[in-house]
Amino acid sequence: MCILCLCSTHRMRGIVAFYVTYLLCLILGIVCVVLVAHWNYTYRGGFAWDGSAKQFNWHPVFMVTGMVVLYGNAAVVYRIPLTWGHNKLPWKLLHAGLLLLSLILSVIGLCAVFDFHNKNQTPNLYSLHSWVGICTTALFTAQWVMGFTAFLLPCTPMAARALIKPTHVWMGAIILVLSIVSCISGINEKLFFALKTNTNGSYTALPPEAITANSLGVIIVAFALVVLKILSNQIWQRPEPGYDEGIYRPLAYDGS
Amino acid sequence: MCILCLCSTHRMRGIVAFYVTYLLCLILGIVCVVLVAHWNYTYRGGFAWDGSAKQFNWHPVFMVTGMVVLYGNAAVVYRIPLTWGHNKLPWKLLHAGLLLLSLILSVIGLCAVFDFHNKNQTPNLYSLHSWVGICTTALFTAQWVMGFTAFLLPCTPMAARALIKPTHVWMGAIILVLSIVSCISGINEKLFFALKTNTNGSYTALPPEAITANSLGVIIVAFALVVLKILSNQIWQRPEPGYDEGIYRPLAYDGS
Repeated sequence: MCILCLCSTHRMRGIVAFYVTYLLCLILGIVCVVLVAHWNYTYRGGFAWDGSAKQFNWHPVFMVTGMVVLYGNAAVVYRIPLTWGHNKLPWKLLHAGLLLLSLILSVIGLCAVFDFHNKNQTPNLYSLHSWVGICTTALFTAQWVMGFTAFLLPCTPMAARALIKPTHVWMGAIILVLSIVSCISGINEKLFFALKTNTNGSYTALPPEAITANSLGVIIVAFALVVLKILSNQIWQRPEPGYDEGIYRPLAYDGS
Repeated sequence: MCILCLCSTHRMRGIVAFYVTYLLCLILGIVCVVLVAHWNYTYRGGFAWDGSAKQFNWHPVFMVTGMVVLYGNAAVVYRIPLTWGHNKLPWKLLHAGLLLLSLILSVIGLCAVFDFHNKNQTPNLYSLHSWVGICTTALFTAQWVMGFTAFLLPCTPMAARALIKPTHVWMGAIILVLSIVSCISGINEKLFFALKTNTNGSYTALPPEAITANSLGVIIVAFALVVLKILSNQIWQRPEPGYDEGIYRPLAYDGS
């Protein structure tokens, strides 16, 4: 078999493997959003913005939807082969737009819990969960501003973009890891608070609510691992312009 | 300046940057061990193996020392330039040995908490922290057995080693991430348990114990980020045999 045919077969296998993994990523993301909403709607009394526990319930929903699911999907946009070979700008705008939406949802999620604490005379930012969580959101904000300045402002020189890109990609993955640390410690904390009385069964007896929220935690971790796998697999990286001329250069870097 | 001189300067800069980062990794690792021991000795009453709360105190000490600090140090052994250009076998044995010690400490840490729970009629494995933690230890055990079989048994073919190595390296980083998720959720949970009474001050008032243990959590995260940075920086990867013949090939792969 000639080298071009081998490259083409290798490329097709890579694309099929990507889409199978990406489908898993989408399914796990949807399950995360459904499960976090179901947990807070069915077991925690639903939602409101009145300073009650129902206001707190927005916090996990917005953080999981914004900081995990939307963030993870935004991170893998450039890996979708469908987007290759086209002008990169619309995909950059989609990447930045999804991340901005993710950031806005996260800030609303933080407002929900700060306002709930303030109205109930509970101090803010005392737990380790809150320390890690607030640092993650601050890093995410800095990353978004830096990314916008470096990659969307036309005045930024290409040399500066090339210098910043590896740090931007690495920080992107690290912020997802920190989001997962924040989410798991937060869900764990919430369950110890919510299930210390016997109304819905003690946490130690693993009532349906505990199984639901523990499973949510496991699926959040699985979602993040799939995203990190997609990001780290070098053969799924967006190739240089010209890849469709028959030469597949998965490790190439287009510097923009 | 000639290309060989440029390569040599680039190489020296890479080595100096590595050792500065590695020193930071060592310092943060030592601070983690000292801080987790100090927290449990000073604020939680010290250590015993008698089914009391003092037995539980071994759990965070062994998990942080084994699953985080020793594990992280074992993961970066091959990145130390001092080990390059020598026979790889002693460093493989050091890598496997440190990880075995890390695994043994983790198992002792798990025995401490299972035995404590059993003696106090507390169910095991109900919290999200415990679900993530036990999965992490199971993955770590599987990874060690797979690593030993693939890379230390002389009968394993080189082709199999080359096939397994990328997954082994990726799983290594992911297990560290899962360890951090387990540690942060565990420290957060322990502080809510320990500081719900006012004996040592409520957690919400951030007494010295809360500041100590929250800081431990932040330093654990910082340690893991430094290890992940060392692992992900391609110019710090162990080069192919022959790098000292003047050609620096940081991305090369020696297949063993």
